Amino acid sequence: MTSGQLQTLRTSTPEEGYALAVKLAQKAIKITQPSEEIRKMLRPVYSTNADSLIATAQVVAIHFQTVAFANNYWND
Amino acid sequence: MTSGQLQTLRTSTPEEGYALAVKLAQKAIKITQPSEEIRKMLRPVYSTNADSLIATAQVVAIHFQTVAFANNYWND
Amino acid sequence: MTSGQLQTLRTSTPEEGYALAVKLAQKAIKITQPSEEIRKMLRPVYSTNADSLIATAQVVAIHFQTVAFANNYWND
Amino acid sequence: MTSGQLQTLRTSTPEEGYALAVKLAQKAIKITQPSEEIRKMLRPVYSTNADSLIATAQVVAIHFQTVAFANNYWND
Amino acid sequence: MTSGQLQTLRTSTPEEGYALAVKLAQKAIKITQPSEEIRKMLRPVYSTNADSLIATAQVVAIHFQTVAFANNYWND
Amino acid sequence: MTSGQLQTLRTSTPEEGYALAVKLAQKAIKITQPSEEIRKMLRPVYSTNADSLIATAQVVAIHFQTVAFANNYWND
Repeated sequence: MTSGQLQTLRTSTPEEGYALAVKLAQKAIKITQPSEEIRKMLRPVYSTNADSLIATAQVVAIHFQTVAFANNYWND
Repeated sequence: MTSGQLQTLRTSTPEEGYALAVKLAQKAIKITQPSEEIRKMLRPVYSTNADSLIATAQVVAIHFQTVAFANNYWND
Repeated sequence: MTSGQLQTLRTSTPEEGYALAVKLAQKAIKITQPSEEIRKMLRPVYSTNADSLIATAQVVAIHFQTVAFANNYWND
Repeated sequence: MTSGQLQTLRTSTPEEGYALAVKLAQKAIKITQPSEEIRKMLRPVYSTNADSLIATAQVVAIHFQTVAFANNYWND
Repeated sequence: MTSGQLQTLRTSTPEEGYALAVKLAQKAIKITQPSEEIRKMLRPVYSTNADSLIATAQVVAIHFQTVAFANNYWND
Repeated sequence: MTSGQLQTLRTSTPEEGYALAVKLAQKAIKITQPSEEIRKMLRPVYSTNADSLIATAQVVAIHFQTVAFANNYWND
């Protein structure tokens, strides 16, 4: 996903799946706010605010659910 | 979906599926606020607010879950 | 659903399924606030507020997930 | 569910399923705030606030997803 | 679950399943805020605030979804 | 998960599954705010705020849903 292109939801491990979930969460923000400059300005705001961090964690949780299911929970 | 009519949830790749999830999120906002003028006025508000961006990402995450399932996670 | 009575979750297309998801979202609000007069007063408030619109879109997203599943994602 | 006891998630129609979802949402509030007097005082607050109504609709949406699945989407 | 140890997600009835969902919601709060004294101080705050009650109901709704699925919706 | 590396979603009991869900919730916050110093400063803020605690419980609830499914609800 170096280019931002999402090729597959398959990952080798839950750890990699979690990293993918984080990227999926960030992807919506990049699409909604394409300016990297503005996103960088916002970063210190939400990364030092407990409620923003919890909300971020919620988005990741939803994506991780999707990625985990796509990988059959890495049970194979 | 150029005309806004949603014909299918099938996409060729996760990347296209994600784009569809973004459109599905926007669709509810267009229905609730049909005025393009007002939506354009709101855009700089939420696109520069970290919490609004995170909330947007959450809506996309729920739709991406739906689209991913509809496409059997592009595992076929 | 002209009378507000919900007969089925089946729809012919994703577009109709999305419209049903919007109605399902509105239905809870009508039950919680039965007065049409008060709901009409609230409409300009939430329809011009970015965060309210995003929250509305989230409710629709959850219902669309349900409707899409009920229709086997219109894959049949 | 007249006595508040939840016997089954089965309903005959989606309309009844939706009504059950509303009751399931209210049930958590009754457990968390057992005083009917306080709940009655809160009612005019959230029932005239757009964001509270949308949040209520979200809880109903999650429960409706559960009830719909329990009834195989009333497709039988 | 008297000791707080979660042994099973199986319950005999939806009513017991709902009670388990409430306990699952409380469990995260106990883990995040282990002080019973502080939790007791917070209780009158959120139990008299409509939005806090609705948010609580949402957490219960997600857990009830899990518990209901674990029990095959008590359809057996 | 002592090193923070997520190896598996399998746990022996629901109790351990819940503990894993809590870790999964914390993981997103550690990724978004890598500074342990800042996270420690935020802790007294959200752990004494009812709404932050409820929001935390919601993230855990989503992850617990994933972990419970991955373990077939510990029904085997």
